[in-house]
Amino acid sequence: MPLSKDQIVPALVQLLGETGVVSEVGDMAGYVSEPRHRFHKQAQAVALPRTVAEVQAVMEWANEVGVHIIPQAGNTGLVGGQVPLFEDEVILSISRLKGVRNVDAAAGHMTLDAGTTLQEAHDIAEDAGMMFPLYIASQGSARIGGVLGSNAGGVQVLSYGNARELCLGVEAVMADGSIYKGLNALRKDNTGYDLKDLLVGSEGTLGIITAATLKLFPKPDAHETALLNVASPEAALELFAMMRARAGNTLTAFELMPRIGIDFQLKHGMMAQDPTAEMSDWYVLVEISVPKGGAAGGLSQAVESAFEAGLVSNGVIAETLSQREALWNAREQMSEVQSREGASIKHDVSVPVAAVPELIARGSEAAQKAVPGIRPVPFGHLGDGNIHFNFSQPEGADGMAFMDGADAVHDAVYAVVRDLGGSVSAEHGIGQLKTGLLKQVKDPVALKMMKAIKSALDPKGILNPGKVLG
Amino acid sequence: MPLSKDQIVPALVQLLGETGVVSEVGDMAGYVSEPRHRFHKQAQAVALPRTVAEVQAVMEWANEVGVHIIPQAGNTGLVGGQVPLFEDEVILSISRLKGVRNVDAAAGHMTLDAGTTLQEAHDIAEDAGMMFPLYIASQGSARIGGVLGSNAGGVQVLSYGNARELCLGVEAVMADGSIYKGLNALRKDNTGYDLKDLLVGSEGTLGIITAATLKLFPKPDAHETALLNVASPEAALELFAMMRARAGNTLTAFELMPRIGIDFQLKHGMMAQDPTAEMSDWYVLVEISVPKGGAAGGLSQAVESAFEAGLVSNGVIAETLSQREALWNAREQMSEVQSREGASIKHDVSVPVAAVPELIARGSEAAQKAVPGIRPVPFGHLGDGNIHFNFSQPEGADGMAFMDGADAVHDAVYAVVRDLGGSVSAEHGIGQLKTGLLKQVKDPVALKMMKAIKSALDPKGILNPGKVLG
Repeated sequence: MPLSKDQIVPALVQLLGETGVVSEVGDMAGYVSEPRHRFHKQAQAVALPRTVAEVQAVMEWANEVGVHIIPQAGNTGLVGGQVPLFEDEVILSISRLKGVRNVDAAAGHMTLDAGTTLQEAHDIAEDAGMMFPLYIASQGSARIGGVLGSNAGGVQVLSYGNARELCLGVEAVMADGSIYKGLNALRKDNTGYDLKDLLVGSEGTLGIITAATLKLFPKPDAHETALLNVASPEAALELFAMMRARAGNTLTAFELMPRIGIDFQLKHGMMAQDPTAEMSDWYVLVEISVPKGGAAGGLSQAVESAFEAGLVSNGVIAETLSQREALWNAREQMSEVQSREGASIKHDVSVPVAAVPELIARGSEAAQKAVPGIRPVPFGHLGDGNIHFNFSQPEGADGMAFMDGADAVHDAVYAVVRDLGGSVSAEHGIGQLKTGLLKQVKDPVALKMMKAIKSALDPKGILNPGKVLG
Repeated sequence: MPLSKDQIVPALVQLLGETGVVSEVGDMAGYVSEPRHRFHKQAQAVALPRTVAEVQAVMEWANEVGVHIIPQAGNTGLVGGQVPLFEDEVILSISRLKGVRNVDAAAGHMTLDAGTTLQEAHDIAEDAGMMFPLYIASQGSARIGGVLGSNAGGVQVLSYGNARELCLGVEAVMADGSIYKGLNALRKDNTGYDLKDLLVGSEGTLGIITAATLKLFPKPDAHETALLNVASPEAALELFAMMRARAGNTLTAFELMPRIGIDFQLKHGMMAQDPTAEMSDWYVLVEISVPKGGAAGGLSQAVESAFEAGLVSNGVIAETLSQREALWNAREQMSEVQSREGASIKHDVSVPVAAVPELIARGSEAAQKAVPGIRPVPFGHLGDGNIHFNFSQPEGADGMAFMDGADAVHDAVYAVVRDLGGSVSAEHGIGQLKTGLLKQVKDPVALKMMKAIKSALDPKGILNPGKVLG
């Protein structure tokens, strides 16, 4: 017999005090509603522990009485992993677990409480003269616990890796309230299974990350940034191989954009004029980070070679910081401008890097067959094989009706992704949005292993029920 | 009732044919004996499957009848993970699973069968104009399956990461014979738990890796290599921070060596003369990899700055490939020269990078207290916090008697390592050598999680019993 709200709230108040619990429906709105307003379920309460000991107390109680707990960090996730599904859950927000446990610039790591926002983490690194190179659009709100729980990516994965690779160790409260003490700052540690990487990306289903040790990197001396005209995704891929061969891991961004995205930005007043001197079907934004003591000018030499090789027909290299910003805006506005253009159907997919051109060609064709007039707007991290494969509604179409037909577009695109050995969730995870899809596409042995691990670490199914595994 | 050898051998012959099974004690010698000759147990048989289907058949049978299986790759492990412990085991050697499934230089990855040696993997990468940057002393014999199973490290972890970070996906046969198909070449994939990283480093206790997709990197244009005199490990650490700030991830090696290691090499004729113009208590070997199109001379500028800052008192920058080789020999002979100097007690440990000087100071003092006259020879990957903390016997001492007192030295060193938040096995793993130590030092919640995962994925305890978890 599950506990009622009348039993849950007083029990939480006893553990956390009056100010540690939110239970009025109106007050919970900011916790149960998520960025895209797709999921509309209520929670029993929101628990706001201030310390790891309080997180532990809540979990011991929840595991004892069988109350379901949803770990929530910045509430910026896009797949509903951090909001209710069954309405019997308590949201455990780690937003009050804020603080710096340790910063060691010389050794290249810092340890932060998991409620610290990503922007604050950037500032802490910056204050120490270093850099934490994980950049996502929601970094002002996203918190370290969620960034790790969802294994966030962003624009510099190419060179620095995703959240998993940027994390040396975590502390986590497990389903039964025990504390996994894995906060080490070691570059090498072969004493047993890789529990850190299991917790990172488990979307709050295996444990609640309460603190993390994160890698710090030296700040580059300068950035060299260019926006280049390329004829096709194939040419972009060839350019990528050339750039990477020249720049190695100083190549920190390689982003693809289609002409239609530039057209949208011009039309909706988000861009004053064409970014390069000639129009192009495709563009890439390339950035090289020049290390301290490294030679400047590497990008312009590389661009010259690419021009001579016929890979690039036109382009612009940023001469000033504001020019660099303008080029990045052209990339970063791609998502927002689509909402100004009407309804859009989105796919966060990845394929092996070499298969990106085929993904775009076949995926666009399949979607256009499913919905005549649909306008493909594929853009993103070509260097990671990770394309935000978005589709804007046909011009003049009804947005609602278009969205009602989204499943046919999803099916068309995911079929191509699967055929190319790709992933149906490159960055955003599974949450509650893609559990059905996961069952269809994932290797059945992998699913079985995941279920076995979930049962082993959370035998009562307390943490984030129904998420990831469905 | 466990099966007898008389039952096991015919069953294996039925699955693999006569040439797929080795069962005579003499013929098994190469499989049951390991590099350091510490472990001396026999096996029931050695199975030599040629295909993944044959691995699967052996595992289905073993899981059915309850025969213990030890996965073995190149048999180069140093902690006895790949050799018998109970004498009821069958060794399953993946040495015949050799081959290239795919190489895609442009996309930066290759997929190899797990029996391929690390040297062959280097050659395959090289033939494709790329580089697979994992270098260990045993690379001629070590095989990909073992490199991943033990999460091998080596000298370039600093820049490229260890085996785990160099692997994009694996295929593995699980304890029940099912095949985990995780061979993707994706840079980003957030569809569920990180099973790849769980299998990597699990030392054959969770599954048998049969193939892997590995990252390829552009070959650097050139290497700039120096051997530098530094006053102390503290000065070396300061130099490391400076070098890393200047060179970023083009700093591909930073290795510390004590004077005694140079003395040994001179004494035993492994080095003709002092490597630098003045003697020094400590040395570092620094290497920068210059990317294609990158500027040369970065190292000499950095060394000049370090000299001006008083961090470096003397040194030599390699002008030719043979000079570079000579500098690397000085580093790579450190281990071998110790065996020429008599008995030595070894520790493969890591601490947070900033704590390396304290580790060396306190660890040396503690060991000298335990065994007066003992000669500390700490060397290795300072940039990873990973020190091979070795101790040579007192001059003129009896080697056997010295080794009999090894436990006191281990206890002294590991106590310091633990106090500094370090790892008692940075590179080599746990195997059968360190299971007792693991129980003492590992976070009890982590141990409990590891046991739960082992039971979940191998409920009958078929794979590599007694290893890692004891």
